[in-house]
Amino acid sequence: MKDHTFQSNDPFPLECGDVLPGIRIRYHCSEGPPKGRQIVWICHALTASSNPADWWPTLVGPGKFFDPGKQFLVCANIPGSCYGSTGPDSPDFPLITIRDMVSAHELLRKHLEIEHIDLLTGGSSGGFQSLEWSISHPHIVRNLCLIACNARVSPWATALNESQRMALWADSTFERPENPQAGRKGLAAARSIALLSYRSYEGYCRTQAEDSPDTLRASKACSYQQYQGEKLADRFNPYSYYTLTLSLDSHNVGRGRGGTAKALSRITARTLCIGIDSDILFPLSEIEYLARHIPGAAKEIISSDFGHDGFLLEHKQITSSICRFLNSEEVR
Amino acid sequence: MKDHTFQSNDPFPLECGDVLPGIRIRYHCSEGPPKGRQIVWICHALTASSNPADWWPTLVGPGKFFDPGKQFLVCANIPGSCYGSTGPDSPDFPLITIRDMVSAHELLRKHLEIEHIDLLTGGSSGGFQSLEWSISHPHIVRNLCLIACNARVSPWATALNESQRMALWADSTFERPENPQAGRKGLAAARSIALLSYRSYEGYCRTQAEDSPDTLRASKACSYQQYQGEKLADRFNPYSYYTLTLSLDSHNVGRGRGGTAKALSRITARTLCIGIDSDILFPLSEIEYLARHIPGAAKEIISSDFGHDGFLLEHKQITSSICRFLNSEEVR
Repeated sequence: MKDHTFQSNDPFPLECGDVLPGIRIRYHCSEGPPKGRQIVWICHALTASSNPADWWPTLVGPGKFFDPGKQFLVCANIPGSCYGSTGPDSPDFPLITIRDMVSAHELLRKHLEIEHIDLLTGGSSGGFQSLEWSISHPHIVRNLCLIACNARVSPWATALNESQRMALWADSTFERPENPQAGRKGLAAARSIALLSYRSYEGYCRTQAEDSPDTLRASKACSYQQYQGEKLADRFNPYSYYTLTLSLDSHNVGRGRGGTAKALSRITARTLCIGIDSDILFPLSEIEYLARHIPGAAKEIISSDFGHDGFLLEHKQITSSICRFLNSEEVR
Repeated sequence: MKDHTFQSNDPFPLECGDVLPGIRIRYHCSEGPPKGRQIVWICHALTASSNPADWWPTLVGPGKFFDPGKQFLVCANIPGSCYGSTGPDSPDFPLITIRDMVSAHELLRKHLEIEHIDLLTGGSSGGFQSLEWSISHPHIVRNLCLIACNARVSPWATALNESQRMALWADSTFERPENPQAGRKGLAAARSIALLSYRSYEGYCRTQAEDSPDTLRASKACSYQQYQGEKLADRFNPYSYYTLTLSLDSHNVGRGRGGTAKALSRITARTLCIGIDSDILFPLSEIEYLARHIPGAAKEIISSDFGHDGFLLEHKQITSSICRFLNSEEVR
């Protein structure tokens, strides 16, 4: 997949009422023209980039289920991110909703002269975008595969997101973008908080149990949290992180559409909803809600000890679920 | 219940190897001598005080299940806290383990000339102390009621505790105890993080769902997190909070005793283990582990949408569980 940048210099109105003077979208796609090929559009989650071979290497790449040489693959970086699309460099940046992300990617779709998306897929907040897009532009999406997401941000997830923002603001350097270390400690803490929701109690037991039965104080999980916090702080911008947690809190497919159930009923794509049995961020009740309200939707439950992160880790189960779905007789 | 302070000027050796020059324990107890009365010792959790009528008002007070006029009630503030017992006033303070808390409260027990505790009870980290005490001094405890706790800190809980410490350190004022606002923002963020584990996904849905189906951005749960964070920052010391999260990570009844199963088998008290079905901090598997390894232990499961906080909220179910236990034929 090659790396490109699309720039629109037309004013870009945001759902919150602000208008950006233009918008830049970085994206990766297969080489050659899309015409005559199966179009697979992958929506990425919170801190990922437009290169799915980087963050979903088990599913995307030559010889993999999503093969850029066979299908025409596209993945676009979300506005608000720090990986090449328009994003913030201070805490003062307008709210970018999930719908704004979809509007930006719609511009890119038109620019690429893609008429239909044969398969639109995404996990977590990538699922939020896929879902929004299938509701706002139902005629465009033929098959939709939603993984570990829901129709509207849950109060628990909002509390989790707010806790992360509180950690960012607790770091007084966050207010000083000119400081080269601005927000670094707050960002590491925020990532550590988010991880609690990505893995399950059981998943932590499996990977972060102390090595000795006699420890004076547990420390293995501490090192893991510190390491993961630092790792994100090395690669991600705290203002993008802040902006994107607010985007998560904007997720509500029912807004202005008479509620979530009514909004979901607008979907015309053939839909598969995949849930993970140990996911505490998107419990199975949320997946069941999606499957119940999206007309004709299929549902698959993946069994994993790794909670929400199962969407990145349980590639065999995910691949076979999508395979079954795409190969089933009802393909349009 | 009246408020007292016990001061021991003997050097107080800690499990970590440090020695405190002495130890001060603030406690509440019933009026009059303990002799000839049923002794009920209540161990408090993380940020509570030695006055259980304050933090467990549904169970403790005149006419309540635990009635200071009928039984002889005792509750002692844990060392490390900021409610009158020896505690920190900077981040530099030695590790206070759960066993150190029990050693301190043992001094108080002797001072009060209490030979046996008829009922020892506590929820959450109050359960940690009750459990440790029943293992280190089995001849003293006659009946033990453990609520929503486990035998050893879990890796997920340690990750949660470490995330809170990362938020405290992200606040650079935490290093400056002379600052009157030192650590305040970090403490509010830490509390917000902890709350995620005290309530369940479903509990947040019930109490923090948005009022409108059309919100641009969810904010009700945000206000709740902010409010609860500020509320704790108003009443608690960030250095105590920091110290006590480290105490939680010291919880391991198996240390130096050949593991948790062997340690639990030492308990001679009649024991009841109470779990809450929606508790994500102490899932039922932990309660089952306790009940399986404590000789002859009974188990009761409380049904609640409020997760771990059910131990403070579901007083009717807790009262009737303890009643059944105390009134059952096998009372010693």
